[in-house]
Amino acid sequence: MTVKAWSASIEQEAQNHQNSLTKPQGSLGKLEEIACWFASRQGKRIPDPLQPHIAIFAADHGVTSEGISAFPAVVTGEMVKNFSRGGAAINVLARQVNATISVVDVGVIADLSDEKGIVHAKVRAGTTNLLHEAAMSEEECLKAMDIGRQEARKAIIQGANILVAGDMGIGNTTASACMICLFTGHTPEEVVGHGTGIDDQTYNHKVNIVSRATKRIRDKQSVPEHYLREAGGLEIAAICGFYLEAASQGIPVIIDGFITSAAALAAQSIERDAADWMLASHISKENGHIYALEQLQLTPLIDFNLRLGEGSGAALILPLLQSSLALHREMATFEGAGVSGKEKG
Amino acid sequence: MTVKAWSASIEQEAQNHQNSLTKPQGSLGKLEEIACWFASRQGKRIPDPLQPHIAIFAADHGVTSEGISAFPAVVTGEMVKNFSRGGAAINVLARQVNATISVVDVGVIADLSDEKGIVHAKVRAGTTNLLHEAAMSEEECLKAMDIGRQEARKAIIQGANILVAGDMGIGNTTASACMICLFTGHTPEEVVGHGTGIDDQTYNHKVNIVSRATKRIRDKQSVPEHYLREAGGLEIAAICGFYLEAASQGIPVIIDGFITSAAALAAQSIERDAADWMLASHISKENGHIYALEQLQLTPLIDFNLRLGEGSGAALILPLLQSSLALHREMATFEGAGVSGKEKG
Repeated sequence: MTVKAWSASIEQEAQNHQNSLTKPQGSLGKLEEIACWFASRQGKRIPDPLQPHIAIFAADHGVTSEGISAFPAVVTGEMVKNFSRGGAAINVLARQVNATISVVDVGVIADLSDEKGIVHAKVRAGTTNLLHEAAMSEEECLKAMDIGRQEARKAIIQGANILVAGDMGIGNTTASACMICLFTGHTPEEVVGHGTGIDDQTYNHKVNIVSRATKRIRDKQSVPEHYLREAGGLEIAAICGFYLEAASQGIPVIIDGFITSAAALAAQSIERDAADWMLASHISKENGHIYALEQLQLTPLIDFNLRLGEGSGAALILPLLQSSLALHREMATFEGAGVSGKEKG
Repeated sequence: MTVKAWSASIEQEAQNHQNSLTKPQGSLGKLEEIACWFASRQGKRIPDPLQPHIAIFAADHGVTSEGISAFPAVVTGEMVKNFSRGGAAINVLARQVNATISVVDVGVIADLSDEKGIVHAKVRAGTTNLLHEAAMSEEECLKAMDIGRQEARKAIIQGANILVAGDMGIGNTTASACMICLFTGHTPEEVVGHGTGIDDQTYNHKVNIVSRATKRIRDKQSVPEHYLREAGGLEIAAICGFYLEAASQGIPVIIDGFITSAAALAAQSIERDAADWMLASHISKENGHIYALEQLQLTPLIDFNLRLGEGSGAALILPLLQSSLALHREMATFEGAGVSGKEKG
């Protein structure tokens, strides 16, 4: 399994096309860059319109027993039901952009076997407490990753040409903070954020938990490929697999916030060029997000102070990507419209 | 003609509604603020979906005889034809968001009387050279403003509840730079940008023209209400009128870039609270844009290095506004979805 190569020559052809359109060269800024990026990834000078699919992966976290979240763990299962009934933020955003959506139970503690309209793929009912031992076994981690890969494959077969992964898991900002500390070398004080809204006392406690957990993992002399199973979560492993499958098939993904960026770092640790197929959507309010994006060499498109997860930031910016491609495809050329070119400068 | 008041109490009701939705409070960041802003402006706790109208105002500028633009003045008329035939960036973006569009000749030098599908409202064929004398007479300026007001009125009668003005006029970054210098007190060196793409030599020349023009106007001891006619353009005056009409009727407008921000400053000089009805879309690559937005007390939503005009940045961000309102309207509440609330923090 490797990462598909993209075409620099088609990116140049797309840029030449941009330069023929009725606007001063470069005046559409990032919209021009986005259109050329998709051209290079789709291998088409004029890329196809986007057909998005959003997969939401849900799982619980043993570390919640340390009291690091503002919400009780039971919310993970309750939110899965909200997703399947269409009432969550990501459902609304999916409807706005005509995206298909799937909801995957990859490790929720609650028994969701009667819940219709979701993918039942529970590897186990929540992870172990990462403070004291590996969150998952190697086998469980690979199984969760494979579930993510399968979701990507299904979406691609059904015609999706842009993929979004969303996360749901009370406690997963703690797991992701550990991963981002380990992958980037930044300290818990720099990386830990307020998650779904903890007070200062809980925040200090969370920093302490992340410090001790990352020390535990470093003391084991773990290699980066092990950080996911040591500190991650089942939904984070699934998202990592989802990204790896997309990169191997050459389908772009949009990274959302803190949790999906941790998953992206795990994917990068397995396939060095995986981020070639990633676009960053937004910069989260959660502190360490910027360090994760820096390591991935990705630049966020917007800064809206979002900190929800679910893939919401990634879904939100889809219309901006669609507009960049529509401009690239539909604008008249100087020649075609009889508009005079630049005379100086 | 005054500015309509907006409702702080309905803004609070909308915030209370936001706090009942299935997400951590505040986790949708700016999207929550936008939804509450529209609630306060529409006077409805759950605001109606947006029905956008885009009006593009085109006119020529006498100051082009100074050689301050990268493109020849003939492009203004050529681009009006491109607008009426649907080939420009703003046409593509309007289609993306189902916006209605109107194109208004308020002062193009070219004879466009045979052109179908545009509003023929030429006040005169281009302005006087603002370097040496007022760009317009008081009467011409008021006439152009009234054309903008009429366009806003027509759109509102036809059901638009959000208005975008776009500009087209070779030379209008020079006019706008003069206005922004005069309104904000910043220097030509700080405010002048590279427009549609001039080289360094032309840039220095443009700074010199703006310096001399603003000195001419200051030496006349002009009051702010005169800056528009002294340094503006017919399309800028029309946009100013468009904004004033919207503010008086209580209909929000989205400000685009450098030129429309100059028009917004002119509107503010006439009606102090006009900016209560304005949202800023993006921060332009054109240098002085940020000073204009500061004076208007507006915060741009995105930074995409755009510098096209036409209303393109304002149209681009419409889906983000639509998404914020859809989330506000369609998300389930904690109670309705049976999701547990916060337990600590």
